[in-house]
Amino acid sequence: MADALLRPREAVVHMAPYSPPTAGREGKLRLDFNENTVGCSPAVVQAITAALSAERLSIYPEYEATRVALSHFYGVPEQQFLLTNGTDEAIQVLVNTFVDDNQEVIVLQPSYAMYRFYAEVAGARVINLPYLPEDLAFPLEELLARISPATRAILLANPNNPTGTGLGIEAIETLLRRAPHSAVLIDEAYYEFCGVTALPLVARYQNLFVSRTFSKAYGLAGLRIGCLFSQTENVQYLRKAQSPYSVNILAAIAARAAVHDGAYVENFVRQALAARDLLCAGFEKRGIGYYASHGNFVLFRAGEKSIFIRDALRDRGVLVRDRSYEIAGCVRVTAGTPDQVERFFAAFDEVWSGARS
Amino acid sequence: MADALLRPREAVVHMAPYSPPTAGREGKLRLDFNENTVGCSPAVVQAITAALSAERLSIYPEYEATRVALSHFYGVPEQQFLLTNGTDEAIQVLVNTFVDDNQEVIVLQPSYAMYRFYAEVAGARVINLPYLPEDLAFPLEELLARISPATRAILLANPNNPTGTGLGIEAIETLLRRAPHSAVLIDEAYYEFCGVTALPLVARYQNLFVSRTFSKAYGLAGLRIGCLFSQTENVQYLRKAQSPYSVNILAAIAARAAVHDGAYVENFVRQALAARDLLCAGFEKRGIGYYASHGNFVLFRAGEKSIFIRDALRDRGVLVRDRSYEIAGCVRVTAGTPDQVERFFAAFDEVWSGARS
Repeated sequence: MADALLRPREAVVHMAPYSPPTAGREGKLRLDFNENTVGCSPAVVQAITAALSAERLSIYPEYEATRVALSHFYGVPEQQFLLTNGTDEAIQVLVNTFVDDNQEVIVLQPSYAMYRFYAEVAGARVINLPYLPEDLAFPLEELLARISPATRAILLANPNNPTGTGLGIEAIETLLRRAPHSAVLIDEAYYEFCGVTALPLVARYQNLFVSRTFSKAYGLAGLRIGCLFSQTENVQYLRKAQSPYSVNILAAIAARAAVHDGAYVENFVRQALAARDLLCAGFEKRGIGYYASHGNFVLFRAGEKSIFIRDALRDRGVLVRDRSYEIAGCVRVTAGTPDQVERFFAAFDEVWSGARS
Repeated sequence: MADALLRPREAVVHMAPYSPPTAGREGKLRLDFNENTVGCSPAVVQAITAALSAERLSIYPEYEATRVALSHFYGVPEQQFLLTNGTDEAIQVLVNTFVDDNQEVIVLQPSYAMYRFYAEVAGARVINLPYLPEDLAFPLEELLARISPATRAILLANPNNPTGTGLGIEAIETLLRRAPHSAVLIDEAYYEFCGVTALPLVARYQNLFVSRTFSKAYGLAGLRIGCLFSQTENVQYLRKAQSPYSVNILAAIAARAAVHDGAYVENFVRQALAARDLLCAGFEKRGIGYYASHGNFVLFRAGEKSIFIRDALRDRGVLVRDRSYEIAGCVRVTAGTPDQVERFFAAFDEVWSGARS
């Protein structure tokens, strides 16, 4: 359409499309998106069933009961968090509140694609800082050196995906002190699997933002709900930039029920951590390199045939995620349950010998 | 916090917070948000119930079946629309795709608050064009005169809320021809109540965007789902600026079931139009001014005591929306069913005499 008069923004023209391979996954062993691989708590399904009515669906969402329940659960006052439409909305609202066109945002590479995505949508200048090539450790010194008065936001995940890399509280505090003028997001999507959290630091650091999600350990990826925490004044600004109804009512009801059934999540986390150990032991036994992980996934070195391996596993009903486009030769596999690890390696062993023949 | 180093964007600092009064509405006669006042189709509740499982909720949403169903229902190829998290996301994605910081966006006044909201979040210069004071007619001549090469987007609702004002296809075409370089959004949230649609024009006008929602006639406001239509190339750009999982899976399933039960919506629309006639006749009988409406609501002239009337009705379990802050002395009441109009006037008559005493 060479003569088109309507032109999108340059920022959008230059963005790469982001289309994760989410189609046709039901019925397969889904070790590709770090979801809860056994499903959410039955108490959540019960709560939705009990709440489900033609009338309820027709009413714009009301969040107060969920806000009260989550405030109690997290031990954070209601004025210090937002409900968000998954972590994606948390990132977007944060960027829209603090980053103007052409301002600088630091993201790490590789990491969750949406940090870069929303920074680009906002027209920010995005600085990519690579994880350390040796062991994919967090490049703390490099990051501290890169921070300048122009840095408006620093967006990172702890632990990080897909590297599995974790960052200690001391390092986070060093970062927060070095960048008092930057909005620092610590995305704790995988918090339940590592137990390290910056949430208690919110009271002390005006520039800290912490996000949590119900998409991973809680098994609610289909419903889209998360939380974004910060100090009251920041949250007031974030609310001004957020749509008033972005979270649907069934997600709000589900989150309330989910935090009420903590035992279910604890049990799944125990299984996932056991599965992660089995994955690491299995790769070790087979002489396959992998990276130590603080999340519910393991990145392993599949070599040149990483895409072949992913495809051959898919043919056997096992889904994993190729990451070779960002870390050469690497594939990511979700840690579900010990049983699922057995199923994974059964398929993997068929595929792996083929990959080397 | 006078010494805060972290500062939000100026655009956000200057925005007014938008907090619609959505709390505590269940159990009341809700004539305040133009929802479907009898609830969505029972077939939708059945479809959700059938789909609801712990596994399903744990999987990132898959949209293909819904996209196919909606493509068929609207008669529009899949490449020519997006699913959106309500109309709000449609507006946001449109603005983020086509409007840069400091560029010009035209909105009408009064209209749906989110046009101005997302334009302001994007840092646009927002031009407010008032509806004509006499009869709240669409200011077509004024709008055409206001369009300049700097106009990047024009965001309007047809029919408009809260005025009820409708715009004919001829006027829309005139507008589209005058602003070939502007993204023109025709928000058809109330389409089902008026039957006028610009959707067939999408094929002919590269600058046209049409949005639809399941929040009004379809009774799915709680679930957050809508569609944004445009030509294929535009949709490709819009997709680049949209989160891949913004719509939740139960909303996607609900929309599919909803369009399958067209008879339910047709029946509700018939009732709502009958209710609208009764509202108008009722105001006329009482000598109260009102504006002719193309939507499922009527704006009436409550005079100086509009807020008192809203509050007194609420005390009687009837919710209406005060609009006096944008149209002096006006209150908006949703047209639900004829029975609900009777209940409304029963409460109204108690209140109205009090308002004048």
